[in-house]
Amino acid sequence: MIIILRIGHRYERDERLSTHCGLVARAFGARRIIFSGEHDAKLMESIGGVAERWGGPFDVHYEGQWKKSLLAHKKKGFTVVHLTMYGTPVQKAMRIIRKRKKLLVVVGSEKVPPEIYQLADFNVSVTSQPHSEVAALAVFLHEYHKGKELSKRFRGAKLRIVPQEKGKKVIETRSRKRA
Amino acid sequence: MIIILRIGHRYERDERLSTHCGLVARAFGARRIIFSGEHDAKLMESIGGVAERWGGPFDVHYEGQWKKSLLAHKKKGFTVVHLTMYGTPVQKAMRIIRKRKKLLVVVGSEKVPPEIYQLADFNVSVTSQPHSEVAALAVFLHEYHKGKELSKRFRGAKLRIVPQEKGKKVIETRSRKRA
Repeated sequence: MIIILRIGHRYERDERLSTHCGLVARAFGARRIIFSGEHDAKLMESIGGVAERWGGPFDVHYEGQWKKSLLAHKKKGFTVVHLTMYGTPVQKAMRIIRKRKKLLVVVGSEKVPPEIYQLADFNVSVTSQPHSEVAALAVFLHEYHKGKELSKRFRGAKLRIVPQEKGKKVIETRSRKRA
Repeated sequence: MIIILRIGHRYERDERLSTHCGLVARAFGARRIIFSGEHDAKLMESIGGVAERWGGPFDVHYEGQWKKSLLAHKKKGFTVVHLTMYGTPVQKAMRIIRKRKKLLVVVGSEKVPPEIYQLADFNVSVTSQPHSEVAALAVFLHEYHKGKELSKRFRGAKLRIVPQEKGKKVIETRSRKRA
């Protein structure tokens, strides 16, 4: 059970990056994303809509106070992993983290409250270089699952891609009424 | 030698996602990113500035006509890999692609010209799910390098992170004058 906590979301400014975080969370095998920061109904609907069409299980939550959410998950036995370029290299930390079955993975936006570094069980870096929380999340989940997430099947999918060498092929996998 | 070609960049609207593509390209071991679409000096300076401070080699180019750039690279012996959710799964395609030493990796923005699917030597998917070109690029490069890019050293870096379990530590690795 992997849950992503995206903190510090800012309405409009972060819309696309937060959307990408949500879609990456789902595609790479997390069960849920929780957004904190400014409430953004459009963002949540957009990601929820993808889960509805492409399958799950995956859901989207909002929690205004990130710290409350983080502590509640800790209490329930989740290991808190904060992704940051300043942390322990993922290739080192993963040996221990992979043994934990309940993870709360925290991904920040531009500015992260310093407190997070103390509250996290692990501060983990994916390269010690500046790049992208979206990329860091994807590579972290990819490493955690040892690449098995790449061929994950999603339950209840209405749409499924049939891989092609050239071009696009999408099939509808359940009958559904059209408007 | 890996070069990234980011097509269809739109000024302002794509600024942050294109920045993330550029930073991921550098952090995960590409040598260059070429932007196509609308010219965006701020975007290019921003990524160039990261390479200047954090080391390289890495450079940022602009080419208004993506097709011209793609064909020129093909002529120089580059294998063209187009990342798309509709393509052959990366875990299958990588066995062949990894043998190629000169890659042009094409990452689109929201809409991709259909011609790309024909021009590419390989259309490759990182999961067959909708998510993020930033994540797809990172995982593709991570797979190509078998994770070795995670500990890559960057030449001429002025700043370097010393990984910490808690908190941040950045050192200046060359003497430099301050304004």
